[in-house]
Amino acid sequence: MDGWLLDGTAAPMLPISDRGLQYGDGLFETIAVRSGTPRFLDRHIARLEAGLQALGFAAQPGAAPISPSLTETLSQVASEVARVASGRSAGVAKVIVTRGSADRGYRPPRIPQLRRLVGWFPSTPPPRHYYVDGVELRVCSTPASSNPATAGHKTLCRLDQVLACAEWDDPDTAEGLMLDTNGHIVGGTMSNFFCLRNDRLLTPALNTCGIAGIMRAVVLEQAAAAGLATRLVDLTLDELRDDDELFLTNSQFGIWPVRSLAGRGRRVGPRTRDLMSRLAAVGVEECAL
Amino acid sequence: MDGWLLDGTAAPMLPISDRGLQYGDGLFETIAVRSGTPRFLDRHIARLEAGLQALGFAAQPGAAPISPSLTETLSQVASEVARVASGRSAGVAKVIVTRGSADRGYRPPRIPQLRRLVGWFPSTPPPRHYYVDGVELRVCSTPASSNPATAGHKTLCRLDQVLACAEWDDPDTAEGLMLDTNGHIVGGTMSNFFCLRNDRLLTPALNTCGIAGIMRAVVLEQAAAAGLATRLVDLTLDELRDDDELFLTNSQFGIWPVRSLAGRGRRVGPRTRDLMSRLAAVGVEECAL
Repeated sequence: MDGWLLDGTAAPMLPISDRGLQYGDGLFETIAVRSGTPRFLDRHIARLEAGLQALGFAAQPGAAPISPSLTETLSQVASEVARVASGRSAGVAKVIVTRGSADRGYRPPRIPQLRRLVGWFPSTPPPRHYYVDGVELRVCSTPASSNPATAGHKTLCRLDQVLACAEWDDPDTAEGLMLDTNGHIVGGTMSNFFCLRNDRLLTPALNTCGIAGIMRAVVLEQAAAAGLATRLVDLTLDELRDDDELFLTNSQFGIWPVRSLAGRGRRVGPRTRDLMSRLAAVGVEECAL
Repeated sequence: MDGWLLDGTAAPMLPISDRGLQYGDGLFETIAVRSGTPRFLDRHIARLEAGLQALGFAAQPGAAPISPSLTETLSQVASEVARVASGRSAGVAKVIVTRGSADRGYRPPRIPQLRRLVGWFPSTPPPRHYYVDGVELRVCSTPASSNPATAGHKTLCRLDQVLACAEWDDPDTAEGLMLDTNGHIVGGTMSNFFCLRNDRLLTPALNTCGIAGIMRAVVLEQAAAAGLATRLVDLTLDELRDDDELFLTNSQFGIWPVRSLAGRGRRVGPRTRDLMSRLAAVGVEECAL
């Protein structure tokens, strides 16, 4: 299967009335597939469920239960992801769940008919030197939107990231760092940001902005297992120190060390490499050096 | 024609690959139609153009011009809106312009193939007592997202408004007021907010949040013509005074006076009624009392 499954059936189109298009009223996941298996699928499904709950995709209080239920929808998503991944060497399964079609107007229907989309995209591995030597990271001028109501969730409202990515077109710059309007680091346009300082691992708290990545959660666990103290913090660029080790995480690529930020060289250090080895040991094979 | 025109042809579906669905990468307009004519069409087209420019829908610097050009797209939108409005007594023409389909990834294509959607929706007039007696306005707990990069524009990323509208289901409450995370008033979920204080008309500046409504612009012009000083301000709920006249504006309904805010009665005053008469005189006939 190339392309998309719409509620389980191969289809290139969806109704224009869909609230995902009309209002960004939905969520998505991008799941790495390696050797036919969706990586960290359970974690992706759990994050999707948390997002669907946060957005009120379950029935409204007092209303009849939705059909299909959240549980059914999540189970169907998992099985359709496995289906598109089957027999593939490497690629991306993208999942979208929307609040479906309804009458015009922001107010969600009391009993939404959830719509699910599962797509398959082949992928090519990132350059090896991104892992070995690190990546160049720029600072974007487009700020990340602040909203505690949706912070952390992977909603369809991603225009900030689109505008941030339009700021550069230099293939040597692998990623752009986004700040909130108070100058706090939120993360890369498509990645989470980490700072290793002595025996502590710092990453933005994402209480008001950003997306809590699956690889971010895996890295926080691996860091704790390695004896690092992990801290969710608010960090500005000025608070970064010269001997901090910086890196980015993403469910597709694992860890990329940062070798320069805003044109200034950074050290790619041994503690980052240790975390990369640990990731490789739990299935993120591209992090093996 | 009921339903949607997709690039000028009646169609109920659009490609799942469309960036409007995938990332909220698009803009929309909702245009009131009265007696077969789209009201304030030129203003809607001008706002759409400003949004398309702000989002970089024109070609990237150094790239070939897009095809169709922005000018062609806007001209086609205007003619398709006139087409769906023709012969209709009252309703809504909804326009969506997206950055079209492209490869997966936030980065916009250098030469986007804009996609335009024009839909027709019949409408029923709001209750007359909304105009005569005013409306009940509640305060939503969902904050409005802050982002100066997209503030004022009517982008497809409207999940805040969706979540805010899900907060109440009482038909006696006509609208919900949204605040930013600093407690400043942004506007209603689907309307702009005004405060008449002596000979001054105050409305949120919308530098970091919200949508700059077409009716808001008309009202600001009419207020200036009536000799009121108009001020774009940051206002908190606490800064509202008991004798302020409050009202809401929207391109579909014109002006609704506010007769209660957060359960507390407000005076519907003569200066609001004067502005309503002035709106009626420039074509917003539902504001005639």
